[in-house]
Amino acid sequence: MAADQAFVTLATNDNYSKGAMVLGRSLRNHKTSRKLVVLIGPHVTEPAREVLQKIYDEVRLVDLLDSRDAAHLSLMKRPDLGVTFTKLHCWTLTHYSKCVFMDADTLVLSNVDELFNREELSAAPDPGWPDCFNSGVFVFRPSNETYEQLIQVCTKDGSFDGGDQGVLNSFFSNWATADITKHLPFIYNLSSIAIYSYLPAFKQYGSEAKVVHFLGKMKPWNYSYDTATKSIKGHSQDPSTLHPDYLLRWWDIYSGSVLPMMKEQYGSQAF
Amino acid sequence: MAADQAFVTLATNDNYSKGAMVLGRSLRNHKTSRKLVVLIGPHVTEPAREVLQKIYDEVRLVDLLDSRDAAHLSLMKRPDLGVTFTKLHCWTLTHYSKCVFMDADTLVLSNVDELFNREELSAAPDPGWPDCFNSGVFVFRPSNETYEQLIQVCTKDGSFDGGDQGVLNSFFSNWATADITKHLPFIYNLSSIAIYSYLPAFKQYGSEAKVVHFLGKMKPWNYSYDTATKSIKGHSQDPSTLHPDYLLRWWDIYSGSVLPMMKEQYGSQAF
Ligand SMILES: O=c1ccn([C@@H]2O[C@H](COP(=O)(O)OP(=O)(O)O)[C@@H](O)[C@H]2O)c(=O)[nH]1
Ligand SMILES: O=c1ccn([C@@H]2O[C@H](COP(=O)(O)OP(=O)(O)O)[C@@H](O)[C@H]2O)c(=O)[nH]1
Ligand SMILES: [Mn+2]
Ligand SMILES: [Mn+2]
Repeated sequence: MAADQAFVTLATNDNYSKGAMVLGRSLRNHKTSRKLVVLIGPHVTEPAREVLQKIYDEVRLVDLLDSRDAAHLSLMKRPDLGVTFTKLHCWTLTHYSKCVFMDADTLVLSNVDELFNREELSAAPDPGWPDCFNSGVFVFRPSNETYEQLIQVCTKDGSFDGGDQGVLNSFFSNWATADITKHLPFIYNLSSIAIYSYLPAFKQYGSEAKVVHFLGKMKPWNYSYDTATKSIKGHSQDPSTLHPDYLLRWWDIYSGSVLPMMKEQYGSQAF
Repeated sequence: MAADQAFVTLATNDNYSKGAMVLGRSLRNHKTSRKLVVLIGPHVTEPAREVLQKIYDEVRLVDLLDSRDAAHLSLMKRPDLGVTFTKLHCWTLTHYSKCVFMDADTLVLSNVDELFNREELSAAPDPGWPDCFNSGVFVFRPSNETYEQLIQVCTKDGSFDGGDQGVLNSFFSNWATADITKHLPFIYNLSSIAIYSYLPAFKQYGSEAKVVHFLGKMKPWNYSYDTATKSIKGHSQDPSTLHPDYLLRWWDIYSGSVLPMMKEQYGSQAF
């Protein structure tokens, strides 16, 4: 059973690939029994693909340009929805019966295999507009039929937020009202933003966090890290920045497990 | 049936009384069939009580100092929880079978009597930490037993956020996971803060708003209003400020229906 279930992420470029590498390592560190799949775009370079191959069971190139289906053709009129389209591609992984999608900017803090007990579409509320779910972590069932329907929503109505989250919320529109078991606890998609908007709740419940989501413009790989002192350089106290503890955990994995693999692949090349 | 159901709010001083007056008027404007109750503290002045009498069916003085129950006595060691304690008092309204509590800084945009179809404890998610409910709008069943239990939680564990929301979330701790019908749609407690944190969702769903909650430090009565031009003075473009449309609706009711009553009561006194 576990063999046809997988964690799935997406990286369309080398920066998001760094996130995918850390996410994959964090899942392995916490001994997941499920397969790991990363969808990559054509712009991910060869050395990054090599490193992803070492961490993931399956590295699947999602090449929009070669796609010849009708859905793709209609989307060509909406180039703005390109990245959105790419994430929806996860529904085409029909050699798995159930999957958990995780954004490349998420980090697992403990084993989360219990997520596979949930059904499509399970997700955690979005802080900000909590009747929408956040599409950074969700449980789904690959299905070409669902995929085609999703693409139809995209082409017909577009996305109210310009991204996959808008499309997915329009499609799975009864999430807020239909079934409480499809509400993942917020600790499965804890975004840094929530820490500052209701700090007492974070102090009360934050220690139970299982997945951190570095949502927003600043991503962990945009900071720099001092390996000698194990500290983040130039981390401001601006409340919109990431939580320093979680950022350190990300960098700890990146510098300890990912960078050595990167150096091996890239050699003297910059990355 | 409707006769033993009520909307309940709380005002411990004249400022929050202004909020309660506008809230009460907005409920009447939208033709609620339920009773209106306001709990007031001893610091609410006589003219403000008179105006509240005209809008509410019941103005109930909650005089902490005169209370002689054990719960109250233990709370005396925790003066910081005073306002919290006052809100919990709504459970003592046992001459009603079911009530909807609404913060004095909320405003009703349409008839919301359908809230009485819900059971205790129904509330909308808190943007920020969405596995907590926001205690600005909630459905409850008055009960002296529940009241005593709540006060016990207060005195034993305090409140993780120093307010009633922390206590209520600790007590009704399975809200996030147990029953989807107890999740009020977010449009029944739309806080200004959510508008700016996920603007596309507000643009998509905001027109369905039924209750606006002016959560946070700046309250509608802290602004000033130009009756001639019907505009808010000194409203900054700071994203943390209130949404100008909702603020105008609040002031429209305040200046049109409440101020004339206030003038009558206060006479030449300042208010
Ligand atoms: O240029 C991009 C943008 C996004 N993504 C993928 O899409 C997800 C969602 O985007 P992002 O995390 O930046 O959005 P946020 O969570 O900040 O709203 C990312 O985690 C990646 O998996 C990507 O591969 N390349
Ligand atoms: O000094 C106070 C503070 C609060 N309240 C009541 O308690 C509610 C909750 O407080 P507030 O709305 O200020 O908190 P927020 O919603 O901003 O967190 C108010 O709406 C009032 O009904 C009051 O009567 N006097
Ligand atoms: Mn993300
Ligand atoms: Mn309030």
